[in-house]
Parts: sequence; structure tokens; C-alpha cells
Amino acid sequence: MNFKRFTTDELAQKIEQGDIVGLSKGITLIESLLQTDRAQAEQLLNTLLPKTGNSVRIGITGVPGVGKSTFIEAFGEYLIKKHHKKVAVLAIDPSSQQTKGSILGDKTRMEKLSANPNAFIRPSASGTTLGGVANKTRESLLLCEAAGYDVTIIETVGVGQSETMVKGMTDFFLLLMLPGAGDELQGIKRGIVEMADMLAINKADGDNKTKAELAKGAYKNALHLLPPHNYGWIPKINTCSATEGLGIDAIWDTINDYYATVGKSNIGTIRKSQNADWLNDTLQSRLLEDFLQHPRVVSLMPQLKEEVRLGHIIPSTATQQLIKLVLVTSASS
Amino acid sequence: MNFKRFTTDELAQKIEQGDIVGLSKGITLIESLLQTDRAQAEQLLNTLLPKTGNSVRIGITGVPGVGKSTFIEAFGEYLIKKHHKKVAVLAIDPSSQQTKGSILGDKTRMEKLSANPNAFIRPSASGTTLGGVANKTRESLLLCEAAGYDVTIIETVGVGQSETMVKGMTDFFLLLMLPGAGDELQGIKRGIVEMADMLAINKADGDNKTKAELAKGAYKNALHLLPPHNYGWIPKINTCSATEGLGIDAIWDTINDYYATVGKSNIGTIRKSQNADWLNDTLQSRLLEDFLQHPRVVSLMPQLKEEVRLGHIIPSTATQQLIKLVLVTSASS
Repeated sequence: MNFKRFTTDELAQKIEQGDIVGLSKGITLIESLLQTDRAQAEQLLNTLLPKTGNSVRIGITGVPGVGKSTFIEAFGEYLIKKHHKKVAVLAIDPSSQQTKGSILGDKTRMEKLSANPNAFIRPSASGTTLGGVANKTRESLLLCEAAGYDVTIIETVGVGQSETMVKGMTDFFLLLMLPGAGDELQGIKRGIVEMADMLAINKADGDNKTKAELAKGAYKNALHLLPPHNYGWIPKINTCSATEGLGIDAIWDTINDYYATVGKSNIGTIRKSQNADWLNDTLQSRLLEDFLQHPRVVSLMPQLKEEVRLGHIIPSTATQQLIKLVLVTSASS
Repeated sequence: MNFKRFTTDELAQKIEQGDIVGLSKGITLIESLLQTDRAQAEQLLNTLLPKTGNSVRIGITGVPGVGKSTFIEAFGEYLIKKHHKKVAVLAIDPSSQQTKGSILGDKTRMEKLSANPNAFIRPSASGTTLGGVANKTRESLLLCEAAGYDVTIIETVGVGQSETMVKGMTDFFLLLMLPGAGDELQGIKRGIVEMADMLAINKADGDNKTKAELAKGAYKNALHLLPPHNYGWIPKINTCSATEGLGIDAIWDTINDYYATVGKSNIGTIRKSQNADWLNDTLQSRLLEDFLQHPRVVSLMPQLKEEVRLGHIIPSTATQQLIKLVLVTSASS
């Protein structure tokens, strides 16, 4: 962290005032792996929790090359200029597990938007597991809400597991598509299309316009075959051009329609159930993490692992031995 | 379990003698969720562990309708009749998580083979998680080896995650395909094709013969684009007809080629690394299971879950509280 450390109360106050440096520091605290930082981050989050929940939470995905950054930049600027919103952009990048640093959500990709005082852009957290990264992104989203951002966008790459995570922390899930790519799903898994509340065919400009309209028709038919979403929402499909600023307003209108259709109380219900799932995810990843760092496990693991590797004992036996050492016995509870 | 219970030693002895009733009882013990049965199963497995490892471990997958059962029946009968092998068939069925009973690997599907005294067929274990089911299948495979089966076949449906598990517990991974289906991958994920040591295009009989040959050529080209497997093995492709018994011998020849190419010592290395992965999987599923059943967690969880659901505390806080209660503190170690 930095030379100058804030107390939790100071940090909470700064974030509530919408101070960008405070918000950045708060997120850095959330992303820290130090035990002491983790405790402070928790305290900070619980302090700010009553101030959260007031943003429009939007998940955005699409295959590489679909123009996610350009779209988010155009969309963010539109929201700030036309609707006087404050916009925060976070990212979940599956590759940040390996690279330990992230490209996705990098500020340099959205130069104009990141220079805007009403926008806050934060690259993806890195971590040992995708679940851990997702947990930090959820917590960061809460900080952004406490800092007064009206719209929070969570961005991810359309290639797999991370979409389910983004869906699980947002209200509205937007899938960006390319016009007229012959293979209709463009490497996007069927399950991701099913999750989407809206499909937007980007790059619908110049020579692509006709192609985009054709694709729109084809997808419209396909969407009718999917089961309807909860609370009566029927997924919508539109074309847009982020570079020319076309169709951006219609997307925002659709998002507002969605909130009106589903209703505030149902959004609340969805978020509560997302919270319960979030607890399960956190439990699963944190438990294993703490277990593997436990001194007794650290000291016994290498030997047991080797015995399992050589086929001298079965994994269940090794596991039972480790668990017995580390879990408080039922009798003592 | 049954009225008559065997001691662990009796059961071990029966299994070593190749007694089918003993083997069945052993697997039932492995599949039991009772704590006492689990302890006995572990003891049994560790007793028999020195007698394991001597089978040819084959994983077989393919989409529903490809003819897996018919193929395994023909293949099993061929191995028994022509090569005097003893053949065991186990299954991992992703759906057995939900159904609690399994259709896959059901004996009634392989009537002729299951009536053969040199064959042992066991339906898939059911369980709360796919990881738990896989763990039981691995353990059952060890019991089959201790009982003297020369070839163990693990069967699964070609739709997703379970393939990785089967790959992780077998030496040779065979993917069954249909002839001439226009969409070249037939709903099989690319990752599954990449895992395969051999592709066999089944139902290459009658009108399908030409189609099957064409598909063989197409796949052959596609396989060349994939990265080579470990230890110099180049995935092979063949056609076969399980109903007419064609091409079954060539598949067995290929499996023998595979063992010769890779070599005994490298197979050993692969299995050791599979054991290490198995430990990680077991740890992950068992730890969470034991944790969630712990009396302290059981008593505190509902309240914490509700607070998280309502957004009064963040999941990290609930998780930390639970872990603190249940994990032995570092100081006391």
C-alpha cells in the first residue's frame, strides 16, 4: 500500500464523499492479500454497506474483437453527458489468474472515458482463483456504489465461466455480438446467449449495416426459442455502432424498460439470492485457501502428498488426516 | 448394507480372490455416506492398494446416441473371448448428482456382457457433487484392479466436465463419434477432442460406410492441427461398427501401440501426477462437505446466511466468522 495510510473511518468518509483517490485506495485494500489489510477491508465494507445498492448494475460480455472497450467508452460518455450519471467500470478477466496483472479494463484502452471526472475505471483484480477475483470485483462494486456511482458496469470476455460470475453480480446482462458472422454463435456458448437480457450487434456501420440487420432477424428468431426470463422479461435485440455512436440510446432505453418490467421489489429479490450464492462461492474458495495456509497442513502436506502420489495411501485417507488435524472436533463444540 | 457384514479383512480377501459378491459389497461400502462405512472403506482400500495398478485403464466417451453401450459390449466380449481378459466397466454420469440413481452403466443396457463371468459392470455412483462421484469411481476402479480385472473401462457422456475427470483417472482416452454428421464436432467440445488418444467413428456399417470414411479423412486433417500428446503419442483415428463387430480389434491394437509408445515408466509418471490431482479434488470436496456438516457451522449458518442475503454483512465477514469457529487456531498447533 501507500506511505500514508488512512484509518478505516477516514477511508469510509472519503469514499462516501466520492473521492476518487479514496475509492482507489479502498479497492487496493480489497485486493490486498495481507491478513491485516483483509481485516480492514472487511470493516470498511461493512461500514459502507448501508450506502450500497443504488446503482444500475450492468454486465457486459462478448468475444475478443467485438469492440467491448469502444462500446463501453461510447456508452459511458453517453450516460455522463446525456443523463448526468456517474459511471464505474470494473472487469473480471479470467486470464488475470495467470498473468497476475490484467489487461482487461486497462485504463489506456478507454482514454477519453477515463479522463472524465464522472467516470471511474479499474482494471481487473488478479488472484489465484477466478472465484477469488470475482469476490474482489463484487466487493469493489459495493465500494463504487458507496462512492455514489449511478451505473456500474462489469465487463468480461465471452469465453466461459466468468460470464456466470458477472451474471451473478449484475441486474442486467448485455451480450455484444458481431454482424453477419456466418457461424451464428460466433464462439459464444449457447448458455451465455441464454443468460443475456439483451443482444446488441455492434459495428453496425458502413458496409456492415445490412449484415447487422440480417443477423438481428436471425437472432430474433433464435431468441424466441429460448425459455423466457424471470419476471416476464423477454430478451431484446438491437444493432449499434459504438464508433459512430448509433443505437447507444436505445440500449439505455431497453435497460430502463427492463427495470420497469421486472420492478424494484423483484430486483431486490434477485440481489438477495445473488448474495446467498456469493456466500457459497466465498466460503468455498476462502475455506480451501485458509486450510492450505494452516501451519499444520503446511507442515504435513508434502509428506502426505508424496505418499498419495506414489500410491501408498488413497487421497481420502490423506484428506481425513489433514481435516482431523485442523477442524475443531465436534465434541468440543 | 446387507444383513451379513464382512470384516475388512474378510472383504479384502474375497476381493483379492476375484469374488464378485465381495467386489460389489466393497463398492457399496465405498459409495456409502455413513461415517463408519467411510472409515471401513478407507481401511479396505489402503489394505488392497498394493494389489492395484495392473489394469489397462481406458476412458470412453461420446454424445448420447453414438452407441457407447453397444460398443463397450462388443469390445468387452472381444477382449474376453480373444484375449482372455477380465473386464470391468464403471461409469461417471453427471446426471447422477440429481437423480440419485443412475441410468448410465446400467446392467440392463449390456445384457450379454453383464452375464459373462469375466465381466463386471457397475452403474455410476450417485452423489451430491460430480467431484464426489468421480472420487468414488476412482476408488471403485482400484477395487476392480485388486479383484484381478485386466481391463477397466470408465464410461461417461460426452457433454462436459466429466470427461476431464475420466481423463484424469485413465491411461487411454477413446472418443466415439458418429459418421458423417455435417457439423464436424457433433456437439463435442473442442477440448474433448484434444484430450482424446483415439477417435473411433462408430456405426460404420451399411449405408454409413462411405460417410464414415469421409469423416475419418476430415478428422485426420483436423487432428494434425492439434498439439501432439505427451510422450510422442499421435492420436489415431479409425472407423468401427459395434453391431457388426468390425474394427474392434484395430482399436485394441491401437491401445497396445499406445502403451508401447509411451512406455511403462511414463505411464507410471502420468498415474503419479493423476494421484496428486486426485488429492486436490478430494480435499476440495471433502473439506467443504465436512465443514458444512460441522455442528458449529450448522447452528450458526442460517443466521449468517440471512444477514448476507439481506445485505447486512458481506460474505467475507460471514465466512471469516465461520472459519474462525471451526478451524483450530494457528497458535494451538
